[in-house]
Amino acid sequence: MDKPYLRVMFNPSLKNPVFVQGLPGFGNVGRIAAHLLIRFCQAKPFAELYSPSFPDYVSINSKGTAYLPRYEFYSAPTEKMNFIIMTGETQPSFDDVVAHYNVCSEIIDYVEKLGCHFIVTIGGVPIVEDKTKVYVAATSPRLANEFVEKGATIYSKGRIVGGTGLTLALAKERGLEGVCLLGPTTGFKADRGAGFLVFKFLMKALGKEIKERL
Amino acid sequence: MDKPYLRVMFNPSLKNPVFVQGLPGFGNVGRIAAHLLIRFCQAKPFAELYSPSFPDYVSINSKGTAYLPRYEFYSAPTEKMNFIIMTGETQPSFDDVVAHYNVCSEIIDYVEKLGCHFIVTIGGVPIVEDKTKVYVAATSPRLANEFVEKGATIYSKGRIVGGTGLTLALAKERGLEGVCLLGPTTGFKADRGAGFLVFKFLMKALGKEIKERL
Amino acid sequence: MDKPYLRVMFNPSLKNPVFVQGLPGFGNVGRIAAHLLIRFCQAKPFAELYSPSFPDYVSINSKGTAYLPRYEFYSAPTEKMNFIIMTGETQPSFDDVVAHYNVCSEIIDYVEKLGCHFIVTIGGVPIVEDKTKVYVAATSPRLANEFVEKGATIYSKGRIVGGTGLTLALAKERGLEGVCLLGPTTGFKADRGAGFLVFKFLMKALGKEIKERL
Amino acid sequence: MDKPYLRVMFNPSLKNPVFVQGLPGFGNVGRIAAHLLIRFCQAKPFAELYSPSFPDYVSINSKGTAYLPRYEFYSAPTEKMNFIIMTGETQPSFDDVVAHYNVCSEIIDYVEKLGCHFIVTIGGVPIVEDKTKVYVAATSPRLANEFVEKGATIYSKGRIVGGTGLTLALAKERGLEGVCLLGPTTGFKADRGAGFLVFKFLMKALGKEIKERL
Repeated sequence: MDKPYLRVMFNPSLKNPVFVQGLPGFGNVGRIAAHLLIRFCQAKPFAELYSPSFPDYVSINSKGTAYLPRYEFYSAPTEKMNFIIMTGETQPSFDDVVAHYNVCSEIIDYVEKLGCHFIVTIGGVPIVEDKTKVYVAATSPRLANEFVEKGATIYSKGRIVGGTGLTLALAKERGLEGVCLLGPTTGFKADRGAGFLVFKFLMKALGKEIKERL
Repeated sequence: MDKPYLRVMFNPSLKNPVFVQGLPGFGNVGRIAAHLLIRFCQAKPFAELYSPSFPDYVSINSKGTAYLPRYEFYSAPTEKMNFIIMTGETQPSFDDVVAHYNVCSEIIDYVEKLGCHFIVTIGGVPIVEDKTKVYVAATSPRLANEFVEKGATIYSKGRIVGGTGLTLALAKERGLEGVCLLGPTTGFKADRGAGFLVFKFLMKALGKEIKERL
Repeated sequence: MDKPYLRVMFNPSLKNPVFVQGLPGFGNVGRIAAHLLIRFCQAKPFAELYSPSFPDYVSINSKGTAYLPRYEFYSAPTEKMNFIIMTGETQPSFDDVVAHYNVCSEIIDYVEKLGCHFIVTIGGVPIVEDKTKVYVAATSPRLANEFVEKGATIYSKGRIVGGTGLTLALAKERGLEGVCLLGPTTGFKADRGAGFLVFKFLMKALGKEIKERL
Repeated sequence: MDKPYLRVMFNPSLKNPVFVQGLPGFGNVGRIAAHLLIRFCQAKPFAELYSPSFPDYVSINSKGTAYLPRYEFYSAPTEKMNFIIMTGETQPSFDDVVAHYNVCSEIIDYVEKLGCHFIVTIGGVPIVEDKTKVYVAATSPRLANEFVEKGATIYSKGRIVGGTGLTLALAKERGLEGVCLLGPTTGFKADRGAGFLVFKFLMKALGKEIKERL
């Protein structure tokens, strides 16, 4: 294995799915929000992404089975909207910048093939003053403003590190639209509150105006 | 040299060989167990694996001859069972994650070609409470349980670092079966006791039920 | 994305353009001088260079739009001379030497295609004694001497780190001519004075003799 | 530039040349010995090796000309023996193991094409007890013994780090013969004495028996 590869159990056939990515990071906000969404929608796993840039350990589950680090894709057809959700337990090493670009490009290649035109990435942001706000960055000023109208605050003049920012910016390069939603967290440990805050905001936001645009 | 390569002296023709990998690591348990098996079976060296990701030094033996770091493959046809054994004096750098994936993939490619369908990787695990237990992780819960019946303890919810875990998990990706056997060790120095413990367990385990499955 | 790539808005058609590169580094002298030149010439952006070796964060502007790290190319047809100017907000990691070579090669490939035969790279140099001197290194002793006649001091027996030196030396490998102009700076923070010093020197130097050689 | 490349001024046509490599390292013994040999033989430069893995700075000579880090090849037809000598001012980063393998492979490819069948690599070794001994490692025990007869001491059960060891061991992989000569040095600064010791030994050793074998 010398580059990322997908193992596809089945390709879901969903109309206009929204892609939601929640990876571990600050306060694990992205991963927690993604898992809440998976449970809420009773989403089903359908594909796995492996990469030689993921950490070189294997994990052992409670039954003694070894498995490689991976990202997992879930599909959720719901009444209001169809979701493709991706989460995982790891990211490439922070030092391996090229790996980050490669893995995020692979993700976008795949979700574009599945028909996604709208991308949501979720992460944490180390802001402590007001823990009730959700921050937003987007592929266009217009889209950022739409989410401000729904209650988010623009995350301006900052930086977003790792897959949460890269997947969004690379999607923009391909002409896709999307937002990055950031939950405020101290980031020292898994922050279930921040994960739930972003999940709730996403549900509310996508339930309304955005849906009509898809 | 820009990727791993094999130098094959001869390809052994063994029926249903079991592949046993024992590399240096915690307490050198894997390497010690592999060397015990090599001596016990009077195994013969037949191939060497080189990689540009191995450390960039050469070793000099007592006769003043320089040689590159390498993994060595040994073949051992025995009455009860045939073995392909691999060991070495090094591993790729812990930082070079992609190298680990590449080297382990190369190993599996080769041993699959030699007819191996069952993989045993051996390593050490930093457990100090009970130094008489051998821990097991496997490619399936059924196989893990078979080894529990033979006296091993499931190594659950942990991680296995480096080639010991990766070779097993990558083999699983190819549809091969196998187990990882871990000897408890403090890991500070070469632990001959832990190496012998795993070797003894392996001999006993393979001598019985597993053999019938091959 | 696994290698550098260009996104070209339009290819400017300029006769004998001079290529000027000013990247961040010591005292940000290169970036500051490039920005002064862009404003002075009212240069227009026409292309962007992306690379998987740039840092794996995205930046968010004041309107909440996310964008990948990139180098930006500007074109400036002026009465006396045509410029292609390149600047950016980042460089590849200092550890990733191969990335530096790749990105600088990509830059030269592109500006050579645009017709540039003369290269100017601008940087800072940690010299504190006399902050009124501009230092020069060149692709040939003759060219270095020409700039000495215009008032620069030869930067002899030193080293120039990162893209500022590499782009020049790689251009020389291709048979192009050029100079590196270095502004003295303590380097601890953005040194607007040093950036202006080099900009002024460049304007004066190119306005005269060099122009005739193109 | 994404891999090593050669710039060849001319290909010397020498009968059975011996290749001598002296790179910087412990006490700069290799580089010093190579330079002594170049002067002694009045060797002429004929080729340069560049690599994107060399440090990402450029050097500036006393005339203000910038040049990339490189290895330089010199040819020296002498009465007794023909030499190809290679030296340089740098090596790839110690962290970049794959780069070391690639650069050394490139060197062997080239010198093999030039007709070299015998390789001498020179380096320093951190031994302080007896600074009059030259240590030797070789591609075969027989060859090591020949050099012991000429006065060298076998460097047994040690390791040789970097290009000095790798070029020899990779040459051995190709079926070439050769030795590594190590001069004892404290290694803290350039050790002209150790460089001269190895140079003198090499001249004496090659002048006699070895010559007949070529």
